[in-house]
Amino acid sequence: MARFALGRGEFGLIAALRRAAGRARGPWRVAIGDDAAVLRVPAGSELVTTVDALVEDVHFRFATTDARSLGRKALAVNLSDLGAMGATPVGCLLALGVPRHAAGARLDGFLAGLLAAARASRCPLVGGDTVASPVFFASVTAFGVAPRGRALLRSGARPGDRVLVTGTLGASALGLAWLESGRGGAAHARAFVRRHRVPRPPFGLGARLARRGDVTAAIDVSDGLVQDLGHVARESGVAIDVDVARVPLPAGAARVAAQLGLDALASALHGGEDYELAFCARRTAPSAAELSRKLGVPIREIGRVRRGRGVRLLRDGKVVQIPGSGWDHFKAPAARAEE
Amino acid sequence: MARFALGRGEFGLIAALRRAAGRARGPWRVAIGDDAAVLRVPAGSELVTTVDALVEDVHFRFATTDARSLGRKALAVNLSDLGAMGATPVGCLLALGVPRHAAGARLDGFLAGLLAAARASRCPLVGGDTVASPVFFASVTAFGVAPRGRALLRSGARPGDRVLVTGTLGASALGLAWLESGRGGAAHARAFVRRHRVPRPPFGLGARLARRGDVTAAIDVSDGLVQDLGHVARESGVAIDVDVARVPLPAGAARVAAQLGLDALASALHGGEDYELAFCARRTAPSAAELSRKLGVPIREIGRVRRGRGVRLLRDGKVVQIPGSGWDHFKAPAARAEE
Repeated sequence: MARFALGRGEFGLIAALRRAAGRARGPWRVAIGDDAAVLRVPAGSELVTTVDALVEDVHFRFATTDARSLGRKALAVNLSDLGAMGATPVGCLLALGVPRHAAGARLDGFLAGLLAAARASRCPLVGGDTVASPVFFASVTAFGVAPRGRALLRSGARPGDRVLVTGTLGASALGLAWLESGRGGAAHARAFVRRHRVPRPPFGLGARLARRGDVTAAIDVSDGLVQDLGHVARESGVAIDVDVARVPLPAGAARVAAQLGLDALASALHGGEDYELAFCARRTAPSAAELSRKLGVPIREIGRVRRGRGVRLLRDGKVVQIPGSGWDHFKAPAARAEE
Repeated sequence: MARFALGRGEFGLIAALRRAAGRARGPWRVAIGDDAAVLRVPAGSELVTTVDALVEDVHFRFATTDARSLGRKALAVNLSDLGAMGATPVGCLLALGVPRHAAGARLDGFLAGLLAAARASRCPLVGGDTVASPVFFASVTAFGVAPRGRALLRSGARPGDRVLVTGTLGASALGLAWLESGRGGAAHARAFVRRHRVPRPPFGLGARLARRGDVTAAIDVSDGLVQDLGHVARESGVAIDVDVARVPLPAGAARVAAQLGLDALASALHGGEDYELAFCARRTAPSAAELSRKLGVPIREIGRVRRGRGVRLLRDGKVVQIPGSGWDHFKAPAARAEE
């Protein structure tokens, strides 16, 4: 490890990363500059760790995103996973593949974005491996801590629990579709494009939910709401009913979706990359409105956990089918475009 | 995370990985199947973590290695880093990029190799992210634990310390050169090729050295002995003298090197990818022969730490120049071949 060595002579980069790591507060005893990083996990805490990879022309294209946004996103998607476990971020490692032609401005932009996100979320970069690669890829491993035995799992939902979700859903999928359609920077679509380029997980919320004691399960909405709630249902051995009329859509979604020939609700249910938090809470927990006020984050109740299997979509109490599929890692839009 | 989902219907793979994770002994409370993995770091221990990426056509080519060997190597290079910190492995995460055409036998072979290495080293795979990618790449994050404050750093070497190295050096570089030369499977070169394909770090040794108290610094020999000792010298603020006559060469190295028009000693000094352990020990530590006997690993004393900067090569007490350069991540052999 500790190979932030892009050929000889690039010690400026290593030095910059070291300064970033050196400034980092937190429990790290050794960061960039050794074979590995050393972390003191505070007593009474557990380590929570996750990895996510973003690959050029599969998860993103430089035609539709800039390197700096990508750097921020590479960390954000991992912070989203940590939040879904109820963990507080403490640091990250980066494995970065960089094509020769991208070793200049693109690399600098990516690192600037990542380091800015790391500072903002108090999740310092503590090491990594930067390698030459035919395509640009970034694999971030993030570390967090959670009070012992209090991490939020996918497996804790019980019949009778309420199902809640933060923010709004579908903006990222619509933003991506807008970019892919080549429609350019229309003002009313800008917020959607931004949501796609740099997701904004509800930082810090997961850890606060974990401390409550009445939140039973959580997952980040990365593969699409229905697919992700399906993971919770399967891991918990329960069924989940979603009232589609309650699913929160972003302002202006209907207009953007219509222009793209898409359905805003289908994008919200199946679109993916929202990086909002879906969670289950006991019946005795405060209402969504009350939680929302207490925690300073928009929260909506969208369904119930019951005995059974799978996820059902309901409208006015009747089962409905709303077509669309969650994120399939081998059918990314960029890849699809080649076919 | 927890996206071992290569499209729908590949639950066989997820199930296999879950079984592997479920069987894993160790301090993991949640492994594959949630947003993140949860680790209980034992009291009195620190977490040690490292990441290394291997990229197709940069670090390896499927023309000269098989997927199973690659899977073993992807973990081994990380275990080598953990060992160099004096840590005992506890688990790993995998970010894997797989081209569509490789999603069958090649993926299976890679995972079989990785899981076999994980079992052998008690370093279970606890999660990951498998994604489509134009090239095959594997980024492994490994986790280990070390007694609090006892991790072996690069920065601990002091003037007067002895410099030691395990095993022999140069076999991997000669094995790679043999493969690249297209000479095929001659019996006398087989051991060199094997060393290149699947490195064998001295598993468990680093943790035992860390417990001794008279080992002051360590590094794994991955970029070439001279370059890696240079890292120790720089981080420790010292100079290192290496007696080149003492550098341990593998049996048969002279013959293989001569056939390739290479120099066995230069390969040992600069070749890289040996994944042996170089370490510094106080003058009062037992002799190399004694350490070797006690620890059951070949160990040779090859030099001394002194005041100053940089690494000097000596023969009969006189400074010599032995050309060759350590591993340059942007001039990998496979990439060089294109130029």
